Amino acid sequence: MSRFWSPLVSRLSPYVPGEQPKIANLTKLNTNENPYGPSPKVLEAIRAEVGDNLRLYPDPDASALKQAIADYHGLQPKQVFVGNGSDEVLAFIFQALFKHEQPLLFPDVTYSFYPVYCGLYEIDYRTIPLADDFSIRIADYEKPNDGIIFPNPNAPTGRALALAEIEALLAANTDSVVVVDEAYVDFGGESAIPLVNRYPNLLVTQTLSKSRSLAGLRVGFAVGHPDLIEALIRVKDSFNSYPLDRLAIVGAVASFADEAYFQQTRQAVIDSREALVAEMAKLGFETIPSAANFIFTRHPAHDAATIATGLREHGVIVRHFNKPRIDQYLRITIGSPEQNARLLSALGEFLRV
Amino acid sequence: MSRFWSPLVSRLSPYVPGEQPKIANLTKLNTNENPYGPSPKVLEAIRAEVGDNLRLYPDPDASALKQAIADYHGLQPKQVFVGNGSDEVLAFIFQALFKHEQPLLFPDVTYSFYPVYCGLYEIDYRTIPLADDFSIRIADYEKPNDGIIFPNPNAPTGRALALAEIEALLAANTDSVVVVDEAYVDFGGESAIPLVNRYPNLLVTQTLSKSRSLAGLRVGFAVGHPDLIEALIRVKDSFNSYPLDRLAIVGAVASFADEAYFQQTRQAVIDSREALVAEMAKLGFETIPSAANFIFTRHPAHDAATIATGLREHGVIVRHFNKPRIDQYLRITIGSPEQNARLLSALGEFLRV
Repeated sequence: MSRFWSPLVSRLSPYVPGEQPKIANLTKLNTNENPYGPSPKVLEAIRAEVGDNLRLYPDPDASALKQAIADYHGLQPKQVFVGNGSDEVLAFIFQALFKHEQPLLFPDVTYSFYPVYCGLYEIDYRTIPLADDFSIRIADYEKPNDGIIFPNPNAPTGRALALAEIEALLAANTDSVVVVDEAYVDFGGESAIPLVNRYPNLLVTQTLSKSRSLAGLRVGFAVGHPDLIEALIRVKDSFNSYPLDRLAIVGAVASFADEAYFQQTRQAVIDSREALVAEMAKLGFETIPSAANFIFTRHPAHDAATIATGLREHGVIVRHFNKPRIDQYLRITIGSPEQNARLLSALGEFLRV
Repeated sequence: MSRFWSPLVSRLSPYVPGEQPKIANLTKLNTNENPYGPSPKVLEAIRAEVGDNLRLYPDPDASALKQAIADYHGLQPKQVFVGNGSDEVLAFIFQALFKHEQPLLFPDVTYSFYPVYCGLYEIDYRTIPLADDFSIRIADYEKPNDGIIFPNPNAPTGRALALAEIEALLAANTDSVVVVDEAYVDFGGESAIPLVNRYPNLLVTQTLSKSRSLAGLRVGFAVGHPDLIEALIRVKDSFNSYPLDRLAIVGAVASFADEAYFQQTRQAVIDSREALVAEMAKLGFETIPSAANFIFTRHPAHDAATIATGLREHGVIVRHFNKPRIDQYLRITIGSPEQNARLLSALGEFLRV
């Protein structure tokens, strides 16, 4: 606290990302990174851009990337906004579209950055409890609001909402913006992107950090009606002209061009998830059905925080949230088959103790 | 304009960066990029990072880069904040430190992003006229304020303020934050960084986009008292955990390690500037003394906008601001000796017409 701070600053409760330990030989299953590296064609495209041209500013509009995303999803570039990771995109959405009279609505158990953005932009919000099975009940969102946001699949539960449910929500809620945060959709969810041409209040966000193995490059995007995209562009152009660097732009463009690699790696993660869930069940774990690259799981006979500490002693890091309703769960990223085997082995040892 | 927009959005007047034309064979002297590419060691460091690790998030604190900057400037890492270009750093500064009761003060002729940030964060501001020779008069800032910001050297004038003047301002103004935006300081200004240990209200920003030839990589930083840095960290951690990607972090670290290349290229730009100013004088141009990698110049017999249009027809792009006091000036980036020769040749042809 300092007298020089804007009054807002002392009221902030910043987001705490999963730990990025600087220790080698850890089995790192705490931040939902992809166990497979980016497409070799992505690496090749980035390497080709590493040269004298880095002295030049990037294209402030990242037009090539907007075009690639538009082409991939059958949209127009004016329906696409790109940013420095979907976190930056979400921040702009909160500032540009969610600051109104009525509160923003989101689930009580969800991505914990949402209330942080509300703090940053002084946005009123209400949380809507998930059902006991951690599903989102659309009917619960039929109340006065100036915005609705939820991840699909939800985080940290991994549970997906059917597209028909999302469409029912959009049909019932036409006067405010609905944002579907699809960070994990490629691992088994149904994308709402096909609905954006029919619902002018729908915005869908995605990231290249998970299913495209580019967490280290920082690229995310939103698609929706051009009026919504225009609001994001106005805020972005009042904040930072060039949030995507040259290497991120070419790498992201190349990712959308290598469909085979994308399909192969996301399917490998899905397969590993199903195998892991089955093995965990044998150890007594109860896992929420997951459509993501992580699982949300608990053991009826062991405290979650204690399991997390025990795993850490075996060199395996998972994420535990010390929060109401979910403090007996662990969120575990789907690793490579080898990483998952190490996890299972560590869990086996811990449970025997 | 859309009913879904937060009310703020329709009031924004976004910043308009210099054009980034997608045409080859232009002599592009409009966005103050360095004519020399980044250090070969920077390119090597980036290439070494292009691999499977891009699947992993970057270090959210960019600790290696903070350490490199701290070491380079004889500071502690807790005195350093890094961001996605100095534009992002400045945005956080405006939000975290300049939103108070009293207005923010900055020159009437200065970096045109400052009033844009004020619009984005609804910050009251007053502009202080430069003297007739476009110098900043420190005494004019002795009035009630909750913040002062100016570039040194100033943009788009290129004129530098002596360090003694800045220290006099700090001595007279102890109750609000003073930010010295040193985007161009390496081309002939005196940095205020040595003052940060003595003035807890001083924040100095720099960028790697100009003197370190890394506009395409997006890295900027601020140094100052840990309390000021803490405010920036709190805002950043409420906005985006990882604004610097893995490639930007390693490239920036490598830049600070290659002092010889940095000294050689910045001196080459300075030498080119002095040669260019002399040649322009022969053509009748009157140039403000510049300590930057650009010049601010006018011709007493020719309208600036007309010259800019004429240069464009010869494939040379410079920047013209259609604004009070400066609409008869052109801001011209210092290019390579070859680019400067093309500029002089085009000017010569234009003036003969």
